[in-house]
Amino acid sequence: MTIADRWLLPDGMDEILPPQATRMEELRRTLLDLYDRWGYDLVMPPPVEFLDSLLTGTGTDLDLQTFKLTDQLTGRMMGASADVTPQVARMDAHSLKRQGPVRLCYCTTVLRAQADKHQGGRSPMQVGVELFGHAGLDADVEVLRLALSSLAAAGARETHLALSHIAIYRELVRGIGWSEDIERALFDAIERKAYVVIDELVAANVADPKLARMLSELPRLHGGAEILEHARLALADAPEAVREALDQLVRLHRGVVAEHPEVSFYFDLAELRGYQYHTGMVFAAYVPGYGQALSKGGRYDDTGKAFGRARPATGFSMDLKQLATLAEREPPTNGIWAPNREDAALNDTINRLRARGERVIQALPDQRTGPGAHRCNRHLVLQDGEWRTEPLD
Amino acid sequence: MTIADRWLLPDGMDEILPPQATRMEELRRTLLDLYDRWGYDLVMPPPVEFLDSLLTGTGTDLDLQTFKLTDQLTGRMMGASADVTPQVARMDAHSLKRQGPVRLCYCTTVLRAQADKHQGGRSPMQVGVELFGHAGLDADVEVLRLALSSLAAAGARETHLALSHIAIYRELVRGIGWSEDIERALFDAIERKAYVVIDELVAANVADPKLARMLSELPRLHGGAEILEHARLALADAPEAVREALDQLVRLHRGVVAEHPEVSFYFDLAELRGYQYHTGMVFAAYVPGYGQALSKGGRYDDTGKAFGRARPATGFSMDLKQLATLAEREPPTNGIWAPNREDAALNDTINRLRARGERVIQALPDQRTGPGAHRCNRHLVLQDGEWRTEPLD
Repeated sequence: MTIADRWLLPDGMDEILPPQATRMEELRRTLLDLYDRWGYDLVMPPPVEFLDSLLTGTGTDLDLQTFKLTDQLTGRMMGASADVTPQVARMDAHSLKRQGPVRLCYCTTVLRAQADKHQGGRSPMQVGVELFGHAGLDADVEVLRLALSSLAAAGARETHLALSHIAIYRELVRGIGWSEDIERALFDAIERKAYVVIDELVAANVADPKLARMLSELPRLHGGAEILEHARLALADAPEAVREALDQLVRLHRGVVAEHPEVSFYFDLAELRGYQYHTGMVFAAYVPGYGQALSKGGRYDDTGKAFGRARPATGFSMDLKQLATLAEREPPTNGIWAPNREDAALNDTINRLRARGERVIQALPDQRTGPGAHRCNRHLVLQDGEWRTEPLD
Repeated sequence: MTIADRWLLPDGMDEILPPQATRMEELRRTLLDLYDRWGYDLVMPPPVEFLDSLLTGTGTDLDLQTFKLTDQLTGRMMGASADVTPQVARMDAHSLKRQGPVRLCYCTTVLRAQADKHQGGRSPMQVGVELFGHAGLDADVEVLRLALSSLAAAGARETHLALSHIAIYRELVRGIGWSEDIERALFDAIERKAYVVIDELVAANVADPKLARMLSELPRLHGGAEILEHARLALADAPEAVREALDQLVRLHRGVVAEHPEVSFYFDLAELRGYQYHTGMVFAAYVPGYGQALSKGGRYDDTGKAFGRARPATGFSMDLKQLATLAEREPPTNGIWAPNREDAALNDTINRLRARGERVIQALPDQRTGPGAHRCNRHLVLQDGEWRTEPLD
């Protein structure tokens, strides 16, 4: 093996060099400060848990994405965290055990066993918030506003927000009593918007003409905010829970639109992403130039059950590595170059400058690289017995 | 399995709840800001690498500490990072390829397969700096000062610094040509300060009476700075490299003592920790109340070779989780409680307060917990048609 081969990194496991690492650190602070100002407390979930707990209440997808490790101390299987959200839900339900609304945020590297071409690398830095303990729409509005504020803070100037509500389809087909085959076939067809297949399946399997019409109509209900009005008419005969879900989308739109003029809205009432997991509104936010959503979230009230304490929950998450590419500023050239000399006065001056927040790089003996290689625009010079900061030529 | 069992975490893999997580985040920022002001650039090493590269140039200890994973994409073995230092050395030598001194810092969670009772958990958050490309003592002085400044910034009021120099023993026994057995026996005895064993081994195996005396003397040379004067006499007949190493300890002491009155010095010329790895000065910093060193570092010039580009290197690292326990401040009760109301003026007021850096928690409908449960000391009230911040009773 040549030295070059040896240092190849596994696909999707990246090292982050200066200045990109500094950019990520700055964005981390910007976002965590934002969440703090909205009352979200920081938590740090364990990077590794026993597999039983890590995957409880989650789906097969997460299992496949989870790196498995053997615990040498107990012989039990452990998994590296591939998604922080279920961990934070467990921390809320099992470790914090607080009453009422609990707002939590996190920013931590997760590991994924497989490279997802839509998700970037296998070591994303997952950052996000979760609001537990409140089932009402106000919590969803807050989370959605915070998601959009996060993207704006990261430098997104234009955001496309795709909004949907899992309860619309779920409540429409509740209690119909199809075979699993037909149910899956219809679900797949709706996900793919395969109108012909949907119409055939509905014609062959749905006796109630009103329901048949609504199911055929549903995948066609997508577009801007005006689609919500069409939907109100098209789904007028739907169960109350469907109409309530539709109403929630209207209120979500109203709760966000005025504050976020940079956002264009897209509603798709048959969007079924995360159907196994989500229970209410779901959203994905896109920014021009990026193929995949930069922020994804929604309500997932049922997760709590597996943790011994059912808690309503809503939240979102993002990959800080992706987000940090939204605004690629160069690091400032604002350092001060200090000569290498044993001199108490020089030392005091350097200490004072650093205490004031200045970046001071002291030369080392026989150093061949100069201040330019270290992002310095000033240097310390001795004038009339005093060390002063002077601009570099 | 009961629910309680299921949520047991693996030994040493901890979750960090509020307010401890916030404390860690604050300390992370304090330290990374400190390193930035000294000219150290942040890097983020990959959490997982191929095992070949991760363990190249490192010892068996690190191999045993490394969790092994199979890369599903290539079938090759990978390892989770258990120590950032060799990764950063690889990044300096192979990825950055800069000329002259390179200053790097990092703060990242690592995983350890075994619980080390002296090291805390199996998921420490390793934070530290490395200075590459300068073989002189000035680089060591800078790193040592930065290590002590880090502890002071973390809240240590009193630090015991144990200083040593690997070259003293190494150069003393260089070229003696003992069998491996005798060499190992002497090394072990010196590490344990087993004076009787040392004297016997030396008497039986060392022909040169001057060298015999120095080897017997070496493990007895430990104590405060005055020991360096004793050592100068006791090792006067040693090879020049030994006397040069001793001189470096004198200069290290001089370079640090004035700036750090909180530090008490302890020199142990036969301290051999990290003998396989280190090449020059080594140090460990202790704080009363903590059994293990909170900061460890030293020079390790030979590591670069394995990376295809030999580079001098010196640095230190710490566990942020441990450090954050040095100053356990309670989080401030400084939030502002806002009522739940759809009101554009209220919304504007909240936005303005948050933009100014205030922490504003908006109540959710039917919320049963009050402002006290959310660290608020003020609330927003409507007075004469304006939303004002008023102290809570």
